[in-house]
Amino acid sequence: MAHIDLGNDLPGIRGPMAYRPEMSRPLNELAEILLRDENNTLSRGDRELIGTYVSSLNDCFFCQNAHGGIAQHYMQCDMSFIDAIKRDPMATPISGKMKALLAIAGKVQVSGKAVTPEDIAYAREQGATDREIHDTVLIAAAFCMFNRYVDGLGTWAPQDRQYYVNRGPRRAAEGYLDFDLYK
Amino acid sequence: MAHIDLGNDLPGIRGPMAYRPEMSRPLNELAEILLRDENNTLSRGDRELIGTYVSSLNDCFFCQNAHGGIAQHYMQCDMSFIDAIKRDPMATPISGKMKALLAIAGKVQVSGKAVTPEDIAYAREQGATDREIHDTVLIAAAFCMFNRYVDGLGTWAPQDRQYYVNRGPRRAAEGYLDFDLYK
Repeated sequence: MAHIDLGNDLPGIRGPMAYRPEMSRPLNELAEILLRDENNTLSRGDRELIGTYVSSLNDCFFCQNAHGGIAQHYMQCDMSFIDAIKRDPMATPISGKMKALLAIAGKVQVSGKAVTPEDIAYAREQGATDREIHDTVLIAAAFCMFNRYVDGLGTWAPQDRQYYVNRGPRRAAEGYLDFDLYK
Repeated sequence: MAHIDLGNDLPGIRGPMAYRPEMSRPLNELAEILLRDENNTLSRGDRELIGTYVSSLNDCFFCQNAHGGIAQHYMQCDMSFIDAIKRDPMATPISGKMKALLAIAGKVQVSGKAVTPEDIAYAREQGATDREIHDTVLIAAAFCMFNRYVDGLGTWAPQDRQYYVNRGPRRAAEGYLDFDLYK
């Protein structure tokens, strides 16, 4: 049960989004451009992975599984690989660039001020562009919002992780602008 | 100097917003509806104060002063009163409802999971509606994003606090949808 009466029993962020649809519109437009816009050198899988990683650091069950389910669909891997990245990105065979960007995202999760010039220099050494660094910071910051929105209102989430794996392909296909999803 | 080359010398969030205007649009639309929409029982001053308080907890100089400057304009007080609220809301003569909502905002700043049923019950006792609690959680969560965006990219900010006081009335009048502000 959520902390307030949302007037619906939708899981996770969908509950408050349906409660305040006028506010969910810019939230979803932000998610769409951040995570799905095709004019981006970070793949959709890369960007969902950044969101998943930050959601894991924020211990947000709904977001880390919802976006983890989409990431594993894009990455054509299983959830155990996503889980390994959440535990320790550096110990996985993802690219050096993604390791460096996830390190920046992890700093942003703690505080914007935790990001150092050395973190940025290392990401550039690993091939990240300034725009990729910008987008990583904003994706990480946005998930610090989404995660707090979901958990700050005490929303419920399906506990069976297969639910999110099953939804991944549909969410990847439909994106974030289909507002029927929030009804 | 920002961590990346933003191609402009605008202060605070205006730098990255001008760098990625396609992403600044939903960010500003979110700020507009959260902080300024007139269909809200929280005043614009109340909402700017919540954002200012969270920005202070996140130690984001630009945001706490930019929004503090707008809050003090709406509240017709001076910055020393805003500073007193940032230091300890409970010790100031703001309403019991605003004290309870700022307490929730302060929990959200730490983690969505830090908000307890007791925090919610107390806010209701102090007269807060469910919608006011919802909006407080989302405003607090959104500033956890904005603050990280500003500081995670290492943007610069004018250090003279009078700059923000002087800008308050204009920002209050123009709102967040005048994209010329971000050029």
